[in-house]
Amino acid sequence: MKLTDIVITPIAMKDPPLRNIQGIHQPYALRSILQVHTDVGLTGLGETYGDLAILTALRKVAPRLRGLDPYDLNGLERIIDETLGRAAGLATHGLVGEASDEKTLATVLSAFEVACWDLQGKALGRPMVELLGGKVRDAVAYSGYLFFKPAAHTPLPDYPTDDWGEAMDAEGIVAQARRMVDGYGFKSLKLKGGVLPPDDEADAILALRQAFPDHPLRLDPNAGWTVDTSIAVGRKLDGVLEYLEDPTGGIDGMAAVAREVSMPLATNMCVTAFSHLKPAVLADAVQVVLSDHHFWGGLRRSRDLAAICRTFGIGLSMHSNSHLGISLAAMTHLAGATPELTYDCDTHYPYLVEDVVQPGALEFVDGAVAVPDGPGLGVELDLDSLARLAEQYEKCGFDTRDDITPMRAVQPDWDAVIPRW
Amino acid sequence: MKLTDIVITPIAMKDPPLRNIQGIHQPYALRSILQVHTDVGLTGLGETYGDLAILTALRKVAPRLRGLDPYDLNGLERIIDETLGRAAGLATHGLVGEASDEKTLATVLSAFEVACWDLQGKALGRPMVELLGGKVRDAVAYSGYLFFKPAAHTPLPDYPTDDWGEAMDAEGIVAQARRMVDGYGFKSLKLKGGVLPPDDEADAILALRQAFPDHPLRLDPNAGWTVDTSIAVGRKLDGVLEYLEDPTGGIDGMAAVAREVSMPLATNMCVTAFSHLKPAVLADAVQVVLSDHHFWGGLRRSRDLAAICRTFGIGLSMHSNSHLGISLAAMTHLAGATPELTYDCDTHYPYLVEDVVQPGALEFVDGAVAVPDGPGLGVELDLDSLARLAEQYEKCGFDTRDDITPMRAVQPDWDAVIPRW
Ligand SMILES: [Mg+2]
Ligand SMILES: [Mg+2]
Repeated sequence: MKLTDIVITPIAMKDPPLRNIQGIHQPYALRSILQVHTDVGLTGLGETYGDLAILTALRKVAPRLRGLDPYDLNGLERIIDETLGRAAGLATHGLVGEASDEKTLATVLSAFEVACWDLQGKALGRPMVELLGGKVRDAVAYSGYLFFKPAAHTPLPDYPTDDWGEAMDAEGIVAQARRMVDGYGFKSLKLKGGVLPPDDEADAILALRQAFPDHPLRLDPNAGWTVDTSIAVGRKLDGVLEYLEDPTGGIDGMAAVAREVSMPLATNMCVTAFSHLKPAVLADAVQVVLSDHHFWGGLRRSRDLAAICRTFGIGLSMHSNSHLGISLAAMTHLAGATPELTYDCDTHYPYLVEDVVQPGALEFVDGAVAVPDGPGLGVELDLDSLARLAEQYEKCGFDTRDDITPMRAVQPDWDAVIPRW
Repeated sequence: MKLTDIVITPIAMKDPPLRNIQGIHQPYALRSILQVHTDVGLTGLGETYGDLAILTALRKVAPRLRGLDPYDLNGLERIIDETLGRAAGLATHGLVGEASDEKTLATVLSAFEVACWDLQGKALGRPMVELLGGKVRDAVAYSGYLFFKPAAHTPLPDYPTDDWGEAMDAEGIVAQARRMVDGYGFKSLKLKGGVLPPDDEADAILALRQAFPDHPLRLDPNAGWTVDTSIAVGRKLDGVLEYLEDPTGGIDGMAAVAREVSMPLATNMCVTAFSHLKPAVLADAVQVVLSDHHFWGGLRRSRDLAAICRTFGIGLSMHSNSHLGISLAAMTHLAGATPELTYDCDTHYPYLVEDVVQPGALEFVDGAVAVPDGPGLGVELDLDSLARLAEQYEKCGFDTRDDITPMRAVQPDWDAVIPRW
């Protein structure tokens, strides 16, 4: 089995106006969809960021992969390194930490690597989870991901208003959580913070605790706070949070907070590449790492990260960006084979109103998604939907994620200051 | 594909009288050979230690594996954990560090896990190296492993004298190295130390340096020295050694030596399980870890170790005990797919005069073994040889490795003191 053509399709999917420290989600989230064809008639699927820089890198690598054996993951990595070089220098948005060559290469690697695993599974007639070492759980638990949000984006022609409604205070967040729990069965809840003043966000957490006494709770202000603010909020929420995620920026800042608060600190900002792990361990900066196969270099590298977390006594959770079903399937297979994952994974999937995969393979039951049992990823492309979302991409008017500009449309003096408080 | 019967055969193979800090090799080295049968007619092979404690554990686990899918490596681990429990408490000999439940479970896991990989490869018609991510090298370089030794074991009936001759001084070691280099093409040399006074062993290294000016050299006294002696020898050999292996015992001791000598320190004694890695990293105790899939938990766990070494800036080499061709094939596939391995691997294979695998698949050319290209491990059992070595096991008169007793046969007051100097 050898790779032949690789078709990379950028798509835009409708995304609600979710708030964060940088600003607000654009009306469309961008993704790249990969169809990796082979000489035996099988096609592997991949999904990653749709930002132009990544798309350009994917398109530079794709023709070089012709003839590659999808089992040759070391060869895949070598070709990507050779093609993009150590000076790839592509930017990623700031919510997953600093951009670096290491992360760019890992991101490009991941997109193709997942497709190669999909092909291996399809060729063998086995779900990907079996190739990753076998199921350690039948279904993967996700957390209900809560966001402060206005009722609608700045009005656009032909753009429907989402049905989540406004949530700009504790009451709105509790209502959002109620819908998440009732509709999906989530057993834990995560609040994206960095939007309201820290005390108000702490109050929202306390309101959630009252409404959902048994749900583990997390708060993630995306490094929006100083060390002092982080310590103050951490103390206020003593005994309430399962973990506090990226209260402040940097390994040194996180270490300073970790020394003064009782709950574990989690991160998908200061430890986002293998080169960050040694300094983080030496500083005892974080107690939980949120893995994300999209920027950690794929499924193999995510397993490496799990082994490191196990070995160094660090907890493992899973990060999410706005994504489609291909990514959800990959996340679910990976988590299904990773015993080190002891926290419910993050996902934006409930906010999705259109997908490129055929329905049925991915359902939330009791807050969890059963590991798909079809070959490979166990999901199939819906080519009509892919074409429609590709057309949406062409018309959406931007090619790179930017949470600042749409925020300025409603608040002209907006600046993405970090830390803000 | 499901596992059915598992046949575990203990064997004894002739082994030369190789000296080390504990004493001297027995006339036979013991190994366990695994034949893991399946319901599709394929048989996977495994090889590990033959000591009674391990053999007993293997035999306890084997019947519990009936029905297991050889892809389900997580399930394999779960069954072994359940069967042996966290209080397995089996001893291993002291040359690979302290015994622990963690290492016992890892050792048992490894033996079956390699057989499962062999089955996966055989079912797919692919060499194991491809399942491990693909070749990063066509052939795996090994080092010429030099031992102080007398000409013969204490005489035994019907036991042939090996043809390596005596090597109890620098001249003998240089002659042994010459034969290793001329006969196998080794491009690096390792001397097992801890036998002569440290200054004499350093002189042997200096004699090797003179005779082989371009060969990287290593010295391994198996923790036979105090910290002070280690520092003194390390300074004497400044600029001469590629690495100094386990000069002294323990993470603290190694760290104290590492601060005072110029060459990297390597270990297969103070870091021999995942639980040792964090303390070693925090103490900056070792610069190279010698992996060994036999006690690190198999090929997946060895890849985990490689990822940890890469991430924490630790070099990776490979350890060897006396072994047969099944182990050499597994070591070669693993090393063939492990880019982090930048040192030549250790092997005792040149001392082997009888094997259980059919000849031809494993040849040393220019000090390296080409990664076998047959399915799975790429080696086949020679059932006649297996039967003969199994008979030899029954007759050899012992069931556990013991380097002390045969040493006492020639030196009645021998005691395996560590450190000796
Ligand atoms: Mg986060
Ligand atoms: Mg050693």
